[in-house]
Amino acid sequence: MGVTLTVLGCGSAIPTSKRNPSAHLLNVNERFFLLDCGEGTQMQLRRNKLKMQRIESIFISHLHGDHFFGLIGLLTTMNLLGRTKELLIYTPAGLKEIIDIQLKLTGTVINYKLQYCFLQNNSPEEIVNDEKLIVTAIPLKHRIPCYGFFFSEKEKQQNIKKEYVEKYKIPYEEILKIKLGQDYATPDGKIISSSQMLLPVTHAKSFAYITDTLPLPEITEIISNTDLLYHEATFSENLKERAIKTFHSTAIQAAEIAKAANVKKLIIGHFSARYKLLDEILIEAKSVFENTVVAAEGETFTA
Amino acid sequence: MGVTLTVLGCGSAIPTSKRNPSAHLLNVNERFFLLDCGEGTQMQLRRNKLKMQRIESIFISHLHGDHFFGLIGLLTTMNLLGRTKELLIYTPAGLKEIIDIQLKLTGTVINYKLQYCFLQNNSPEEIVNDEKLIVTAIPLKHRIPCYGFFFSEKEKQQNIKKEYVEKYKIPYEEILKIKLGQDYATPDGKIISSSQMLLPVTHAKSFAYITDTLPLPEITEIISNTDLLYHEATFSENLKERAIKTFHSTAIQAAEIAKAANVKKLIIGHFSARYKLLDEILIEAKSVFENTVVAAEGETFTA
Repeated sequence: MGVTLTVLGCGSAIPTSKRNPSAHLLNVNERFFLLDCGEGTQMQLRRNKLKMQRIESIFISHLHGDHFFGLIGLLTTMNLLGRTKELLIYTPAGLKEIIDIQLKLTGTVINYKLQYCFLQNNSPEEIVNDEKLIVTAIPLKHRIPCYGFFFSEKEKQQNIKKEYVEKYKIPYEEILKIKLGQDYATPDGKIISSSQMLLPVTHAKSFAYITDTLPLPEITEIISNTDLLYHEATFSENLKERAIKTFHSTAIQAAEIAKAANVKKLIIGHFSARYKLLDEILIEAKSVFENTVVAAEGETFTA
Repeated sequence: MGVTLTVLGCGSAIPTSKRNPSAHLLNVNERFFLLDCGEGTQMQLRRNKLKMQRIESIFISHLHGDHFFGLIGLLTTMNLLGRTKELLIYTPAGLKEIIDIQLKLTGTVINYKLQYCFLQNNSPEEIVNDEKLIVTAIPLKHRIPCYGFFFSEKEKQQNIKKEYVEKYKIPYEEILKIKLGQDYATPDGKIISSSQMLLPVTHAKSFAYITDTLPLPEITEIISNTDLLYHEATFSENLKERAIKTFHSTAIQAAEIAKAANVKKLIIGHFSARYKLLDEILIEAKSVFENTVVAAEGETFTA
């Protein structure tokens, strides 16, 4: 239970022998979401023994190849393995065209419902709002349209302790009232306070995925106090000019966003292929925001 | 020097954590050719420390995803790494459309000359014929148009031993005649036979790449006596019916082709994901053709 992020690819435009292009599996209370799908994602899922068929939706940040070239392979393998469950893809426009032509020319018929939701807003937009979760797409600043995603669990209603239900044989409609904070009167007139009967509140968790972008201080309000922030840190500080030119962030800039947003933990990733070791990048980020960790293939981080 | 094949992917439609989809690097006397380009090929090239920029052409057998989904990633990485050298792709029609739409929608401009040669013949066709090499495309029998490739080195002209050139100061035009088999008369009338002066003949090597297909006895004539044959062996014999249904070969059928063609060595590959171990498949093939080896990620086989 809880919110965890497993890194499947922490590289950037040019993959290396050790770092795959961007892909991350987010687990929100056993609901699985794929964040970006660089080349090799299906193999990375297998290597890490993660079940691809449990993914209910895929979020593509933008249409640079290192964020989606693995999608066609994943979709067709899901099909070959007999998927029937619907799959929803949140993406900037254009991706459907790319997938459709490949399905057509390879003679592939997808046997599950493949749905697209196209991102086009210039301001933050709620793209998922169900019983348990809100997902907000946040426009970022990259060379092409690009979106971050903010996952926010809804506060869970407190559950009633089983022993009270059993002891007083409390009817269902009364349980609902107790959950809303109403005390309970037993048939013989005894008053039992709801606070006594309810289990402790579980803190609703939140997670933000911000890649690829120039640092954007305006997003700190939306993601403020979030439990876990993944922010790209393609470059170290001495390549700040290059970061600006290519619309990326440095490790220090990522840490500044984490600090300004008062997040609990920062994961940095999307590292340029030029870095064999990440010590320098981590030291730089930690100089601004101490609770920083570096993304690494196959590692899982908990919110 | 010589002819070697490095296996980058020996899996089939569904990759596993151990087997990538089809990709092979062929080295013909330091000229590099990529045979198929399944998802993850660029990472496999890097892991095996093979230089992608040295590839002069790519041969795509057919447009099933496990044979080309890695192409767009490889082409764009070659570009990011500054390739200027022309790249030629031999492929059934349709692939250019798939690559072009992805280049367009990702805003990528390829800075090297990317050329396509579309395969469409229903009979074997010489698609390369240069100073040193002939490549023949061989139509196979799969669910969609599919081609095998037969690489045949041209017989090399015998070189003259250096010591004779130095000792007798033989002029360049006379050397050419000696190479063609003419004896040499020294200025003082001594006759030296060409056979004495020439180095031993190096046997011109040949290699055939046959995947995906039903077994085709009619190809044995073209590939007869070849040094090294790669033939798909997706299934073991007990799944022969499934092999027929899906237009694939069994290990025994691959070995029968090798035997009928009197090849020197057979590599079997393109294994179904259902096989964790390949012992059974290898034993079956060896029962028909002893000099059989199984393809394995990163292994290099010499003709």
